[in-house]
Amino acid sequence: MTPPEDPNRVIVFDTTLRDGEQSPGISLNTQEKLEIAQQLARLGVDVIEAGFPITSPGDFEAVQEISRTVEGPVIAGLARTHVADIDAAWNAVRDAARPRIHTFISTSDIHIQYQLQTTREDVMGQARAAVAHAKQYLDDVEFSPMDATRADVEFTAEVCKIAIDEGATTINIPDTVGYTMPHEFTAYLTKLYELVPALHDVVLSVHCHDDLGLAVANSFAGLLAGARQVECAINGIGERAGNASLEEIVMLLHTRQADIGLRTGAVTREIARTSRLVSRLTGYPVQPNKAVVGRNAFAHESGIHQDGVLKERTTYEIMEATTVGLDANSIVLGKHSGRHALQQALAQLGFDVSGQTLNTAFKRFKEIADKKKQVTAMDLEALVTDELREEIPGYQLEWFEVEASSRRPPHATVGIRGPEGEELTGSFTGDGPIDAIFHAINTATGTEVKLREFRVDAVTGGQDALGETSVVLEVAGMTGSGQGVSTDILEAAGRAYTRALSNALRQRTVAAEAELATAAVPETVRAP
Amino acid sequence: MTPPEDPNRVIVFDTTLRDGEQSPGISLNTQEKLEIAQQLARLGVDVIEAGFPITSPGDFEAVQEISRTVEGPVIAGLARTHVADIDAAWNAVRDAARPRIHTFISTSDIHIQYQLQTTREDVMGQARAAVAHAKQYLDDVEFSPMDATRADVEFTAEVCKIAIDEGATTINIPDTVGYTMPHEFTAYLTKLYELVPALHDVVLSVHCHDDLGLAVANSFAGLLAGARQVECAINGIGERAGNASLEEIVMLLHTRQADIGLRTGAVTREIARTSRLVSRLTGYPVQPNKAVVGRNAFAHESGIHQDGVLKERTTYEIMEATTVGLDANSIVLGKHSGRHALQQALAQLGFDVSGQTLNTAFKRFKEIADKKKQVTAMDLEALVTDELREEIPGYQLEWFEVEASSRRPPHATVGIRGPEGEELTGSFTGDGPIDAIFHAINTATGTEVKLREFRVDAVTGGQDALGETSVVLEVAGMTGSGQGVSTDILEAAGRAYTRALSNALRQRTVAAEAELATAAVPETVRAP
Repeated sequence: MTPPEDPNRVIVFDTTLRDGEQSPGISLNTQEKLEIAQQLARLGVDVIEAGFPITSPGDFEAVQEISRTVEGPVIAGLARTHVADIDAAWNAVRDAARPRIHTFISTSDIHIQYQLQTTREDVMGQARAAVAHAKQYLDDVEFSPMDATRADVEFTAEVCKIAIDEGATTINIPDTVGYTMPHEFTAYLTKLYELVPALHDVVLSVHCHDDLGLAVANSFAGLLAGARQVECAINGIGERAGNASLEEIVMLLHTRQADIGLRTGAVTREIARTSRLVSRLTGYPVQPNKAVVGRNAFAHESGIHQDGVLKERTTYEIMEATTVGLDANSIVLGKHSGRHALQQALAQLGFDVSGQTLNTAFKRFKEIADKKKQVTAMDLEALVTDELREEIPGYQLEWFEVEASSRRPPHATVGIRGPEGEELTGSFTGDGPIDAIFHAINTATGTEVKLREFRVDAVTGGQDALGETSVVLEVAGMTGSGQGVSTDILEAAGRAYTRALSNALRQRTVAAEAELATAAVPETVRAP
Repeated sequence: MTPPEDPNRVIVFDTTLRDGEQSPGISLNTQEKLEIAQQLARLGVDVIEAGFPITSPGDFEAVQEISRTVEGPVIAGLARTHVADIDAAWNAVRDAARPRIHTFISTSDIHIQYQLQTTREDVMGQARAAVAHAKQYLDDVEFSPMDATRADVEFTAEVCKIAIDEGATTINIPDTVGYTMPHEFTAYLTKLYELVPALHDVVLSVHCHDDLGLAVANSFAGLLAGARQVECAINGIGERAGNASLEEIVMLLHTRQADIGLRTGAVTREIARTSRLVSRLTGYPVQPNKAVVGRNAFAHESGIHQDGVLKERTTYEIMEATTVGLDANSIVLGKHSGRHALQQALAQLGFDVSGQTLNTAFKRFKEIADKKKQVTAMDLEALVTDELREEIPGYQLEWFEVEASSRRPPHATVGIRGPEGEELTGSFTGDGPIDAIFHAINTATGTEVKLREFRVDAVTGGQDALGETSVVLEVAGMTGSGQGVSTDILEAAGRAYTRALSNALRQRTVAAEAELATAAVPETVRAP
């Protein structure tokens, strides 16, 4: 990727599917990753880091599928400096219209000594070889000196020079452990520019973590120091405290553009929806006071503030909720709305739905509309995400019965349809009604399951709100996650659990197939 | 408050109970505010802004109670520049060992013109009169030019000079709408120091909001520019996107102390517990990737990171989880643990429990321990917060029966004990089992309720996790919130709902009493 024509244009590099997906308890399947990638394309990000292909067959498959399907952004695959990593990354991204390989190696002495257990010389050699190897495949190569902010800037400069010599087109400076401070990062990057004049001919990028709450500020300091790519993730997810939040960076540059002059290509109106989609599929809630996308980011509670906003909006607001797409709740359907109204509403939300899928959607819509007076855009979004996703072959919850009481332990019976259409039933007496349903499903399907995460959310407010549950569980070492939506929390929980179970079982199948496949592949392509 | 002896000592001013409590859907009663204030004292904050006494009788009562009870920190009450506000603030904080009045008026033209609908001259007059009036009562007076970062710095300087002339001991510069950027804020404060040399004789404070994700970075820029008080809130709660997170500021200064040289008096080991308490009582979840206090802030997921941490912790960790008190889960009790073990475990958690309270705690502990294999410190904390709080006179859930099924609408019957000990029952068929319980409680108590928030969380992981629910509801214009803890989600929901209902009804009583009282008070003391 060559530097953009406009010197003030900032490249938004989204790593939700790579660093974000590295968060504990997040386990997205290929279909879910594809859905997120499509939405990132609608959001107008410039680069999607789709995964780390060498790490698992599932990661490889997802990066390949995104490369083949998602139009618009550059699709990047991550790779250590190993030949096998770079080959896997290339094989995964090669079908993209604009592929990128992103390779990295640590330059901090603490990483070189303790983790890599090697020498600075070896690191230089590995960086050179990796970029050169990647360049044989494609032009767009990004190089990152990992843990750079804790590394000797002179040595890091040496390594960056080598990477640029070999043809790296983007140099990314990661604050891997979230340790730096804005003024320190500015000084670091300024020094780096001094030591490596060739940095002016490539795109300088920054990748900041939020361990001390400074990810956005450090990224911003990087942009002010000359960087023109910023690596970030939706809702700020990622390792530990996560990455810089994409939505905060984008809205900071947007809101202060008159003073700073930098701009991104992001379609800000897609921000709220992207945030909700990522939250729903990862099972990671967004706290109400999260900047830009939190439920209350635009709410005024104190009388003084409310009074001010009524007199003149800008007294207490620097952004409008509509700018980030938070007005989506204006679409409302009722129990008498027809198939055509539903189709139109879904189209407004960006979902092209027709034929059998529309029938399925309409059936579920009617069920919900019978119970809820009004069905809002956010309800529809939850339904679509929950119901219209390509159904994973596996188990389906057909029916359940629960008796719960403060006087005796709750009892659940469930009916499950199995992968071959067989009908299965199971019963269990548990500590709570949801616990009883989960165990009854285990009994019906004959699986041994470890529940890792369980979460319940209300999609919209009010007494008749839709409940949304998400489950992460483990079966025989494979992790699966699932979501369920219903006005009945027990039904939502049962649906989510059954889906998560089917997902985990599918992971096992993919892994088994991959094992068969790699048995025939030369040694160097396997994960080290 | 005079500037501390040590020029590197930063005063931590916590506004969780004032700006934090101003968040939509948060409704703390006096007992809950007191609990948070006690914990803030254990955390070692220097100043607790306990509320805005003029705004409601409940706010006044809470500030007064905290002033009378909580030892250690300065207790501040907020007041506009009106005489009535300052009188109310003084009356609320006067019993504190070290009281403070914090008064404010906007200096930005947009606020002066549209909200205050007055002139710059009038603002100067009001600031002068307010500080002078407060100084008649006490020495420790803080003044804030609201919306300062969007105001003319020369005019703001004029107003600050006046406040200092009249005896203000702290000047706080708020970025009220979360608009400024670190380099801009630095320039602003540097200019202010130039224009107001007397600022060097008082404590300069900063108060930043997180609308663009920069609250911590802007606060930090303020400290580097010379401020020695930082206003912040636990979990970063507050108006809209909230305030700077106390825990992030404290851990930033702690982690980078060798480089920056600033220090706070905070007891970092109390951070995690304070965060959990505030999250539980406000019903505001903390997202897993929240810096410092998020569930995953110290978790490593990627193979590379895990490998690094195993080889040498500091390869990927810049803080230790124990430093912020995240090791509390090491306390574990089982079903055979006795009364004494429970008392000791509670004491370790900072709860002095004996007599009847210990009996109540032990009874509930046994109920939970019968269902869960292991009861951890976090479970105990949830129980204590849920169960040992001074019981509010009102309704209590005695028993319930629920039948739920995918084949017909769920049906609930509940038994409630009323305020006079009477037994009430109610039944309802709802859209979901929780909905049915809530409506059955309405029927039993004969109240008309509007549900505003409902949330479910797992306290700890695993199949037998304790579920924690929180409810915010409205009865006849009064808001009440409540929490419930149980392994049975329906029981937890029912308990939370009944408590919230009792809280709302108590609010109504307090308001009615206050109305009687103010009828006899002169005009000027009433809320304008």
